[in-house]
Amino acid sequence: MARQTVSHEDGAIYEFTPDLDGIVTVDPGTELTIETRDSLDGAVQAESDVIETVPEEVNAATGPIEIEGATPGDVLRVEIEAIRLAEEQGRVITIDGFGLLDRHDDIEAPRTRMTPVDDGTIEFDGLEVPVEPVIGTIGVAPDSESHTTLVPYDHGGNLDTTDVTAGNAIYFPVFQDGAMLAMGDCKAAMADGEMCGTGVEIATEIDATIEVIENAAIDLERPLVETPDAWKTIASAETLQAACELANRDAIALLAAEHGFDATDAYMFSSLVGGLEISQVVDPLVTVRNAVPKEYLSSPF
Amino acid sequence: MARQTVSHEDGAIYEFTPDLDGIVTVDPGTELTIETRDSLDGAVQAESDVIETVPEEVNAATGPIEIEGATPGDVLRVEIEAIRLAEEQGRVITIDGFGLLDRHDDIEAPRTRMTPVDDGTIEFDGLEVPVEPVIGTIGVAPDSESHTTLVPYDHGGNLDTTDVTAGNAIYFPVFQDGAMLAMGDCKAAMADGEMCGTGVEIATEIDATIEVIENAAIDLERPLVETPDAWKTIASAETLQAACELANRDAIALLAAEHGFDATDAYMFSSLVGGLEISQVVDPLVTVRNAVPKEYLSSPF
Repeated sequence: MARQTVSHEDGAIYEFTPDLDGIVTVDPGTELTIETRDSLDGAVQAESDVIETVPEEVNAATGPIEIEGATPGDVLRVEIEAIRLAEEQGRVITIDGFGLLDRHDDIEAPRTRMTPVDDGTIEFDGLEVPVEPVIGTIGVAPDSESHTTLVPYDHGGNLDTTDVTAGNAIYFPVFQDGAMLAMGDCKAAMADGEMCGTGVEIATEIDATIEVIENAAIDLERPLVETPDAWKTIASAETLQAACELANRDAIALLAAEHGFDATDAYMFSSLVGGLEISQVVDPLVTVRNAVPKEYLSSPF
Repeated sequence: MARQTVSHEDGAIYEFTPDLDGIVTVDPGTELTIETRDSLDGAVQAESDVIETVPEEVNAATGPIEIEGATPGDVLRVEIEAIRLAEEQGRVITIDGFGLLDRHDDIEAPRTRMTPVDDGTIEFDGLEVPVEPVIGTIGVAPDSESHTTLVPYDHGGNLDTTDVTAGNAIYFPVFQDGAMLAMGDCKAAMADGEMCGTGVEIATEIDATIEVIENAAIDLERPLVETPDAWKTIASAETLQAACELANRDAIALLAAEHGFDATDAYMFSSLVGGLEISQVVDPLVTVRNAVPKEYLSSPF
């Protein structure tokens, strides 16, 4: 069966709200190709195109995709099978008022660097970087509050997490009927941290299959990502320290459920394997993850 | 030539001060075996041995080892060849007032878990974890202020960084004549983050070779670690965000020097490869690193 395509031209959102309407409805298990435009909506095509301030609308997320039968309390599983670049160049930018070193005198903002892409390689000023695409913004309709696509939170959103890539699966709590999945803001490559505020921003085509998990054994409150080797809790908060606490608490809950540990033993064990990782340090909330190798954690679902 | 042994019984410090005296003087290139006791000085030998509050003296660091000819402005290179466990059991503990989740009601402190070690494997309550030793505290005499061995800073100290392990090399600025290297506080295993406040604390024997780099091309201000694949700057500060800024600035300086980038281009490039990593989130200052793969950075020395 041919994959079903959902394009940003069919619809895209700049805000995850509790009352989203789907632009398409699909059955669980449908093989999708989701077309995304770059996070800056095509505004940057040359190094002379600079972005002075963070746009009011950024990180267009293709969707919402309504998943038939998904209801609050379920878990949505998004298996990312492939991410193909849909442009021959990406862009890396700085914007005044944004980025880890925003207040540092020698950092010039705005600046744009265009990065040609050829044969699996990105060029940045003569240096070659392998294409390793990441979905920057991905999430579902939230529980009660609305969040622009610049913000990461418990519904997902602007997670900017390098593990959200081909070969991995990401899980979200379903807060609203139909889940209302949307994604965009892809990068051809990104460092953990996304320090300057972007990776190589680029349009893509994402092959993904979405499943609904009913009666999950755990109460998933925030996104969770599965790699070939590890389960990683993902948490966003105002400070890195607070995000670490949330991500560690979620990892502890998984370890306790699997091994019959109390919270303290799970906490102590979490301090021995895998560990805390930085997703991004630049968005309105910052994001970290807590990795637990699969040797110590089977599927929590 | 036989390795020269330096034992904690010869001398160990609980504070890195500017005016340390060496317990031994060695020539650069001497192959050393450094014996360290566990971070709690042997006080915890059973699960009934609990540590109520953070001891005034903790993380005994074997040394100081005076390096003949090391003078301020040089760089000290410590190549870690092997770390052998010197006990048949380690311990993981919680202490009231310490650890990422210290204020959480369901985390019990103090608690001690003893972890038997056998044939390359640590046992934690029935789970097996591979032995992957880490040197928790390692540093040199600081520039002007003194720091207890509980504190990580620009001289090193309680860095609790998983990359400080066999097969890697760590570099320090030399602030004082003789450098005055000391190390201890080893773990048989530790997660990035060291969330509960310890890894598997254990006595070890460390095989290391120390070199002095004169006239270094860069002005090293803080520790730097070299793995087979990457160079990683290491920075400690009061918040994770501030530590990220320092580690990223140091990585940018290396990238700019190597590629002729200005600070902004180096910052943008640093956002594409490797990235920020968490060392520990529990000590009086917290520690992060910024990894840059070796494809993009040759030795800065």
